[in-house]
Amino acid sequence: MNDYFTSRRALIDGFLQEFASRLGAPHPIDRPLQRSLASAGKRVRGILTLAVGEAVGCRPEKLLPAAAAMELIHTSSLILDDLPSMDDAQLRRGAPTLHREFGEDLAILSAVALLNYSYGLVSSNHATLSPRRWPASQVIARVVDAVGWTGTIGGEAVDLHSEGSTLDFDTLELIHSRKTGALFVAAAAVGGMLANIDSARLRGVETYAKNLGLAFQITDDVLDVVSTPETLGKDVGKDAQRLTFVKLAGVDGARKLSAELVETSLAAIAPLGPAAAPLRELATLVRDRVK
Amino acid sequence: MNDYFTSRRALIDGFLQEFASRLGAPHPIDRPLQRSLASAGKRVRGILTLAVGEAVGCRPEKLLPAAAAMELIHTSSLILDDLPSMDDAQLRRGAPTLHREFGEDLAILSAVALLNYSYGLVSSNHATLSPRRWPASQVIARVVDAVGWTGTIGGEAVDLHSEGSTLDFDTLELIHSRKTGALFVAAAAVGGMLANIDSARLRGVETYAKNLGLAFQITDDVLDVVSTPETLGKDVGKDAQRLTFVKLAGVDGARKLSAELVETSLAAIAPLGPAAAPLRELATLVRDRVK
Repeated sequence: MNDYFTSRRALIDGFLQEFASRLGAPHPIDRPLQRSLASAGKRVRGILTLAVGEAVGCRPEKLLPAAAAMELIHTSSLILDDLPSMDDAQLRRGAPTLHREFGEDLAILSAVALLNYSYGLVSSNHATLSPRRWPASQVIARVVDAVGWTGTIGGEAVDLHSEGSTLDFDTLELIHSRKTGALFVAAAAVGGMLANIDSARLRGVETYAKNLGLAFQITDDVLDVVSTPETLGKDVGKDAQRLTFVKLAGVDGARKLSAELVETSLAAIAPLGPAAAPLRELATLVRDRVK
Repeated sequence: MNDYFTSRRALIDGFLQEFASRLGAPHPIDRPLQRSLASAGKRVRGILTLAVGEAVGCRPEKLLPAAAAMELIHTSSLILDDLPSMDDAQLRRGAPTLHREFGEDLAILSAVALLNYSYGLVSSNHATLSPRRWPASQVIARVVDAVGWTGTIGGEAVDLHSEGSTLDFDTLELIHSRKTGALFVAAAAVGGMLANIDSARLRGVETYAKNLGLAFQITDDVLDVVSTPETLGKDVGKDAQRLTFVKLAGVDGARKLSAELVETSLAAIAPLGPAAAPLRELATLVRDRVK
C-alpha cells in the first residue's frame, strides 16, 4: 500500500475507533458491534468515497462520516454473508466470524444495526456539507438502491441460489455488479455528490467505480483459488460449489479480464485530470492484487 | 375497529400493495418480499404516522410513504424476531413465519431489505413535503435512533439475553421502551415533523406515543397469556421463559397498568384539541384490546 492509501485508511480507522468508543449500545450487543468496527478491513469503499470527493476539491476529513458509512454497510454485508444459513464461514479478516464469537442472534442484530446507522451518518454528513446540486433524498436513494434488492441484497440472494446453475457470463456479471459493483458505485457517487460534483463528472466516476468493483470481485475470485486462509484472513475455497469468473475463464483469463476492466475504469476518469490521481492509484492496486 | 382506522389501514395497505407490484426485485427474493408486504398487519404504527400528521393539518395521502416506511420497519423487526436464533416462531399474522416458508437466508435478506428501503421512503417523503422546521437529517436521525442499538435492536438484544434474570420493573420498562416504544415514538414524530409540527406539540405527541407504545406492549404480554394462536395469528405462550409485565403484576395488574399508561398518553395530547380525535381513539383501541 502506498502513502495515500495508508493515510486515508488511518483516517477512516480513526473515525471508526472514536465512533466505537462512544456507541452507547447496551450489553450484550456492545461487544459484537465494537469488534465489528475494529476489525482490520482494507477500507477500499471508504477510501473510494474520500478519493472521489478529493478529486472534486473536498477535504477528506469532511467526508469521513459518509466514508465510514460505506464501511459500516460493507461490514454489515460481510457479517450476513458469513452466517450459517448463507456462506457458513468460520474466518473473516483474520478472526472468527461474528456469529462464531457472539452467536447468530447478536451477529444478525449487529449487522442490521450497522446498516441502519449508516443512514444516520450519510444524512448528517449531507447536512454538514449541504451540496447545492444534490438534495439529501437523491444521495440517500443511491445508497438505498445499492444496498437493497436491486443491489447487494438482491445479488446475494441470486448468488446463494445460483449453485449448480449452468455457467453463464451474463448471470455472473449481474450477480457481481449487484453484490460488489453497486456499493462501489454508491461509495463513489456519495463522495462526489456530497462534494457537489456536476452530473457529467458524476457519470464518469460511476463508470469508473462500476468497472473497478467488478475487477475487485474478479480478483477476489482469483484469490479464493490461489491463496491460503493465513494470507487472506478469511476462508478460501468457499466458492468451489459456486459460479465464479475463474471457473468461467480460468485463473489467467480472470486476471486478464480484471486488467481490462481496470483499463476501462481509468479511461472513465481521464477528464478529471491530476486531482484524480488517487483514483488512478486505487485502480492500479486492485489490478495488482493478483499480478 | 372504527371507520377512521379501517379507512387509514386501507390507505396503507393500498400503498403497500401498489409498492409490492412494482418492486423489481430479482428471483428468489421477490416472493418473500411480496409475501411480507401483503401480510395482514394491524398497521398501528403507520396509522400513528398519519394520525399525528392529520392532527397538525396534513392530508393522510401525503404521508403514505412515511407511514408505509414505519410498517416496513416493523415487519422487518418481526421477521428477525421470529428467526430460529431469536424467538424461533412458527406462526406470524396467521401464516407460517417467513423463514419457515422461504428459508432463513431469504428471510434475513428480506428483513434487511425492508429496513433499508424504509430510508428511501422517509427521505423521498421529506423531499416532497419539505417541512420548513425539520431538515431531512433530523427526521432520519429519529428513525435511526428508534431502530438501532438505542432502540428496537438494542431492546431485542437485551430481551433475548434477559431470560432467567431477576424480575425487575426498570429492566422490563427499558426493554419495552426500546423494543416497542422507540418505533411508536418515531412513527409519531416522523408524521408530525413531515407535517411541520412545532417543537412544543412534537414533545406532547412523543409523550403520547411513548406511553401508548408501552401500553401496547403490555397488552401484547396479556394477549400472549390469555389468547390462542387462532385468534392471535401468532404463537402464544412464547414468553413463558421471559420477563413480562404479566409475570411482574399478574394479568389484572398488567391490564390496570396499560389503562393508566393510556390515560397518561391522552393527557399529553390534550393541547392538540379536536384535530387529535384519531389519536384519542387509537389510544382507546389499545386499552380495549385486553378489556
